[in-house]
Amino acid sequence: MHLRHEIAHVSHVELLTPAPEQSLWFFTEVMGLTENGSEGDSVYLRTWDDYEHHTLKLTAHTTSGIRRTGLRASSPEALDRLVKAIQDQDLGIGWQDGDPGIGPCFLFRDPDGHEMELYWENEWYEAPPGLVPALKNQAQAYPGRGVCVRRLDHVNYLSAEVEPNTSFITDVLGGRVTEQIRLDTGLISGGWTHFANKSYDLVYTRDWTGSNGRLHHIAFATDTREDILRAADIFLDKNVHIETGPHKHAIQQTFFLYVYEPGGNRIELCNPCARLILAPDWKTITWSESERAKGQAWGLKTIESFHTHGTPPV
Amino acid sequence: MHLRHEIAHVSHVELLTPAPEQSLWFFTEVMGLTENGSEGDSVYLRTWDDYEHHTLKLTAHTTSGIRRTGLRASSPEALDRLVKAIQDQDLGIGWQDGDPGIGPCFLFRDPDGHEMELYWENEWYEAPPGLVPALKNQAQAYPGRGVCVRRLDHVNYLSAEVEPNTSFITDVLGGRVTEQIRLDTGLISGGWTHFANKSYDLVYTRDWTGSNGRLHHIAFATDTREDILRAADIFLDKNVHIETGPHKHAIQQTFFLYVYEPGGNRIELCNPCARLILAPDWKTITWSESERAKGQAWGLKTIESFHTHGTPPV
Amino acid sequence: MHLRHEIAHVSHVELLTPAPEQSLWFFTEVMGLTENGSEGDSVYLRTWDDYEHHTLKLTAHTTSGIRRTGLRASSPEALDRLVKAIQDQDLGIGWQDGDPGIGPCFLFRDPDGHEMELYWENEWYEAPPGLVPALKNQAQAYPGRGVCVRRLDHVNYLSAEVEPNTSFITDVLGGRVTEQIRLDTGLISGGWTHFANKSYDLVYTRDWTGSNGRLHHIAFATDTREDILRAADIFLDKNVHIETGPHKHAIQQTFFLYVYEPGGNRIELCNPCARLILAPDWKTITWSESERAKGQAWGLKTIESFHTHGTPPV
Amino acid sequence: MHLRHEIAHVSHVELLTPAPEQSLWFFTEVMGLTENGSEGDSVYLRTWDDYEHHTLKLTAHTTSGIRRTGLRASSPEALDRLVKAIQDQDLGIGWQDGDPGIGPCFLFRDPDGHEMELYWENEWYEAPPGLVPALKNQAQAYPGRGVCVRRLDHVNYLSAEVEPNTSFITDVLGGRVTEQIRLDTGLISGGWTHFANKSYDLVYTRDWTGSNGRLHHIAFATDTREDILRAADIFLDKNVHIETGPHKHAIQQTFFLYVYEPGGNRIELCNPCARLILAPDWKTITWSESERAKGQAWGLKTIESFHTHGTPPV
Repeated sequence: MHLRHEIAHVSHVELLTPAPEQSLWFFTEVMGLTENGSEGDSVYLRTWDDYEHHTLKLTAHTTSGIRRTGLRASSPEALDRLVKAIQDQDLGIGWQDGDPGIGPCFLFRDPDGHEMELYWENEWYEAPPGLVPALKNQAQAYPGRGVCVRRLDHVNYLSAEVEPNTSFITDVLGGRVTEQIRLDTGLISGGWTHFANKSYDLVYTRDWTGSNGRLHHIAFATDTREDILRAADIFLDKNVHIETGPHKHAIQQTFFLYVYEPGGNRIELCNPCARLILAPDWKTITWSESERAKGQAWGLKTIESFHTHGTPPV
Repeated sequence: MHLRHEIAHVSHVELLTPAPEQSLWFFTEVMGLTENGSEGDSVYLRTWDDYEHHTLKLTAHTTSGIRRTGLRASSPEALDRLVKAIQDQDLGIGWQDGDPGIGPCFLFRDPDGHEMELYWENEWYEAPPGLVPALKNQAQAYPGRGVCVRRLDHVNYLSAEVEPNTSFITDVLGGRVTEQIRLDTGLISGGWTHFANKSYDLVYTRDWTGSNGRLHHIAFATDTREDILRAADIFLDKNVHIETGPHKHAIQQTFFLYVYEPGGNRIELCNPCARLILAPDWKTITWSESERAKGQAWGLKTIESFHTHGTPPV
Repeated sequence: MHLRHEIAHVSHVELLTPAPEQSLWFFTEVMGLTENGSEGDSVYLRTWDDYEHHTLKLTAHTTSGIRRTGLRASSPEALDRLVKAIQDQDLGIGWQDGDPGIGPCFLFRDPDGHEMELYWENEWYEAPPGLVPALKNQAQAYPGRGVCVRRLDHVNYLSAEVEPNTSFITDVLGGRVTEQIRLDTGLISGGWTHFANKSYDLVYTRDWTGSNGRLHHIAFATDTREDILRAADIFLDKNVHIETGPHKHAIQQTFFLYVYEPGGNRIELCNPCARLILAPDWKTITWSESERAKGQAWGLKTIESFHTHGTPPV
Repeated sequence: MHLRHEIAHVSHVELLTPAPEQSLWFFTEVMGLTENGSEGDSVYLRTWDDYEHHTLKLTAHTTSGIRRTGLRASSPEALDRLVKAIQDQDLGIGWQDGDPGIGPCFLFRDPDGHEMELYWENEWYEAPPGLVPALKNQAQAYPGRGVCVRRLDHVNYLSAEVEPNTSFITDVLGGRVTEQIRLDTGLISGGWTHFANKSYDLVYTRDWTGSNGRLHHIAFATDTREDILRAADIFLDKNVHIETGPHKHAIQQTFFLYVYEPGGNRIELCNPCARLILAPDWKTITWSESERAKGQAWGLKTIESFHTHGTPPV
C-alpha cells in the first residue's frame, strides 16, 4: 500500500488537565513552549518550530486526556477527498469554525472514538517583537528556556482494538503502517502509522481496560539526543515524574524519555536521529511477542506502568 | 505550488574519481561505507541505512565529477507520468537496464546537462552474514568504522543558470523550491529544491565559470551533530582536507562540514537536527545579497573556494 | 617542573561593566547564572556547580575589564607558604576581609599587575528552597535557563610580557606551563598554566598595545559540546555578538565559542571533552608561528579581533 | 582530610581472560584500543590519549579477573614516601622490573588482596608512522574504529570489607573518599576514592560472596555522552552483552554503560561531563539505603546482576 500523501502532518492537539496551573507551568517553564493567547478555559501554546498559531491547546477540565487532534490536509483538494471518504465511513461529525489561526475544520472520530479535526486553511504565525528569530527560515526565536522542544512529533492513542484504527488511517486517511506488534494469538497490539517521511505520526496501542478514546502519550521532538539527556536533569530538579528512559526504542529506534505532566498525561520527549522512511514501498515491520520480550533496543525492560497508565484514568 | 510527491527520494549517485584507490579508501575506511560488489571500473558502496543495493557507485575515470544521479519514483504510475513529462520537455535520453539491484531506468538530463535516472523497480537489500543488524527495522548492521554516515542526503549541482533547473524540478518533477538566493541584480544564484519532508534534496548553485554539468558537492547525513565533530577529528588525523566547518548554515540551518575526497570531489557531512518541512504550502525563503554577506548562521564567513571549486575542474 | 598543588583552583572573578543592567541580563538570562545577593554596585552570581558563595562578582564601573581573580589555596599551610613566597617577590598588597562567603584574603598582583586574592576559609553554599538539587552531590539545582554553564573554567589575561607572568605562576604559585606559543623571534606570545588536572587555569597572552592588567577573556565550562552548539543558537536569537566559533582550538584542544557580553568583555564557552593532564611530568608543548598559521584544529583561521580586542579598551 | 597528591593517577591494569582471542577482538575492534606489542600470553593495548606505553595488559589465563593495577607516583620523592608507608603496613611485596615502557615497580596489595604496582620512571609513548597525531599535544592519532575510548578512567574492586580498603587509600596512599554508601546497619558497602580532580579513581564495593581480590569492573572514559549512545549501537550490532545503561549514576553523576567483554569481565564506558572535584576540603557524600533505593539519577533501578556478577567467578 503506497502513501497517498493526503494528510500533510499532525499539527496540534487539545490536551485536558485537572491541574491547569501546574500543567501550564510544566509546558511553559519546563518544556519551553510559548504562550500564544488564551480563550475561556484554554491556553494556546506553541513550540518554536511551529509555523501555525499553536501546537497545544491546554484546557482545564475535570479530568485528563486528549480532546482532539488536528490534522492538516495536503491541499484543498485532498481535504475534499478526505472529508468524503470519512463521511462514507459514517465517522464524520461535521464542519465547525477552527480555533484561532485555524480555518474551517471538519470534525470526525477514528473508529475508537478519538476526536480529530481536518482542515486546510490557516494563518501562518508571525512572531511578535521579542520573539522574532534571527534567521528568516525559522518561525520563532529559540526560547532557550527549559527543555525547549522543537515540535509536536506524534500522538499515541490507546484503543480497545488496534486494527480497525490503523486500517482507518491507511484506507481512509491514506497513511501506512510502518511497524506493528503481533501477539502470539495473532492479535495486533500496537500499530505505528505515518503520512510522509517521519516514520510515525499516529500510533495505536491496545487499551487493556477495553476503554475507548484514551491517550497513551503525546510526544515532542527535540533537536538532539543530548537535549533529552539534559531534559532528564531538568525534570529531576523540577520534580517532574520520570516514568522511564532515556533509552532507545527497538520499534522505530527512537531515543525517548517519558514523564507525566502535572495533569497526569504522559508526555514523551523523542529524537529519531536522522531516521526517515524514504522508501515508497516500505514493508510493515512486524514484531513478535518474543522479540518484544527482549526489551528496548539496548535491553531496558518495558516498564509495567507503560501497559497500565493512560488518560483519563478509567 | 504544492508538492506532487512524484519522486520518493534521491537514491544514489555515480561519482567519478581519477584516484580510485584513495577514493575507495576514503569512502570505506574514513566515511564508513560498506562495499557491495564491483563491476568494471566501478565499486558499489552503501551507507548502512540504505534499503537498496547501493548508495554510491564509485567509478575510476580520467577526471572527477558526478556522472549520474538516481531518483526513485513514488509509484509505477508516478514513473509513467514523470517519463512523459520529461519527454515533453525533450530532455529524455531513453530507457536502459539498471545497475545491480536497480530495475529499468529512464535516463534524462536536467536543463544544465546533469544526467539522471528515474526508476521504480528495485531489489531490497538483504544483509549477508556478518552485516545482519540486531534490529529488524534497519537495513544493515552499524559498521562502527570511521565517520559511519547514515545515508545520502542531497546533491548540490553547479549550473550555468539556476532558474531553468529549479523550474524543471518544480514544474516537471513535482518538487518545490524551499529556499533560494537572489542577487541584487535579480539573478537567482542558488536554489534548494525538495520532494517531500526533507528540506532539500537537489540544489543548484550558479557556476561562475559558465560550465555545464558540474558538481558542487554530494552530502551524507550523520545521525548527530556530534558525529560531525567527531568526523572532523577523524579527517584531521587521516589527513583529509577540511575545506570549512563544522558550522551551521543560515540557509536550511544544516550543521555542516566540507572536505575533499582524494579524487577532488567535495563531500559534505550534514545534520539537520530535527528540521523537516511539514507545511504543504511552504513559502520559498529568499535571501538577499546583504543577508548572505552576514555569513553562516553563527557568523562564519563563506570560504572563497566555495565559489570556485567544482568538479571536474574547468 | 612538577606541580606543587599549592593552589586548588581558580574560584571566582570580579568583572567590571559599564552596562550593568544589560550585563546582568546576559549573565542571568542568557548564560543561566543565579543571583546570590548584591552589595553596593556589585551583584554576586553563581554557576550551578559552584560549591562556594559566588563565581562572578559583577560590578558597575566606568569601563570594562577584570578587577580581581580569586584563587583558593589547597590547605591553610599552602596558603601560608604562598603568601610568604609572594611577599618575597614584593608582589603582595596585604590582607583584607573577603566578600560574602569568603574568608580573609591575601591580595597581590601578578607581575603584569592583575589583582588576585588568595584565601583558604570560606562558607560552603547552601541552596535555598527552590534551588535545592535532587542529587545531594550537587551544589544547586540545574537552572535550565539559557546556556546554563557549569562552572568558571579559566581566565585569559592580556599582559605586556608573557614570560614574567607564567614564571610567577610556576615558580611562586606552584603551577606549570602546559602549552605555549613561541614566535620566530623567540618571544613567548602566549602561555597556558595549570594547577592540577585541568589542562589550563590561567592564561597569559601578549598585549600588543603594551598595556598592563587587561583581560582577554574569562571562560565558563559547559557540560557538553552540544551545550555550546545550542548556546550559539541562543546567542543568535538573543542578539549577543558572536566573535568566533564554535570550533576546536589546536592549543589545548578545547571546543570553544567566543562572545562579547554587553559590557564589552569577551566571554568564552569552553568544553574540553574528557581531556585532563594526568602526567605528573607533562612536558610543555611549544607551538611555532608556522604551526599557529594553520589556524585552529579543524582549520578555522584565528579572527583578527582576537589579537586586538581586550578590556578595558586602551 | 586533604588530598596529599602522592599518586598522580591510575595508569594501567592487567586483565585476565579465558577467551583471549575474543577479548582481543573486543578491545581492539569494538573498543578501539591500539595494540602496542605482546609478550608471552599478554598483549599490550593502549587508548589513544595515553601518554605511556600501554593502558591495558590483556593476559590469557584460566579464568577472568584483574591481576594488577598500576599507579604512577606524583614524583620520585612521593614514590619513596609511599613505599615506606606501604611497608609500614606490611602490605609490600617488593620491587621488580616493570613491563615494557614502565620503570622499576614496587608491588603491594591492598588489604583485600588486590595487587598493585607503584612506579615513577617510564618512557613516554612515541607514535609510530601511521599513528602520529595531527596535533602535537595528543599522544596518538584518533583511531576512528569502534567505540574509540579515550582513556582508562577507574577501577572498581569487589572486596570482602570496604572500609579497610578505602582507609588504606586515604591514610596510606593519600587519597580521599568522595562518596560512599552506608547501609542501615552502619556498614559501608561502597566507597569511591580519588587522588586529584577526577571525582573517583579507585572504588571498593562489598563482595557479598565474602571473596577477596575480585573485580567489579574497569571503566574507560569517552569524550562525550554521545560516544556512549553510539557505543550502545555498536555493542548491539557486534553482539556484545549490554548489562545495563546507558543512564546516569546518582553517585558521582557519571553517564554510564556496562557490558561484559568476551572473557566475562565487566567493562564500563563512562563520561563525567565536565564534573571535577575542585574543592580541597570536599566533604564525603554519604548515601543511605533508602536514597539508593530510588535507583540511578533518572530512576533506573540498579540491575540485580550488579550485585552478583564479579570476576573471577566464585
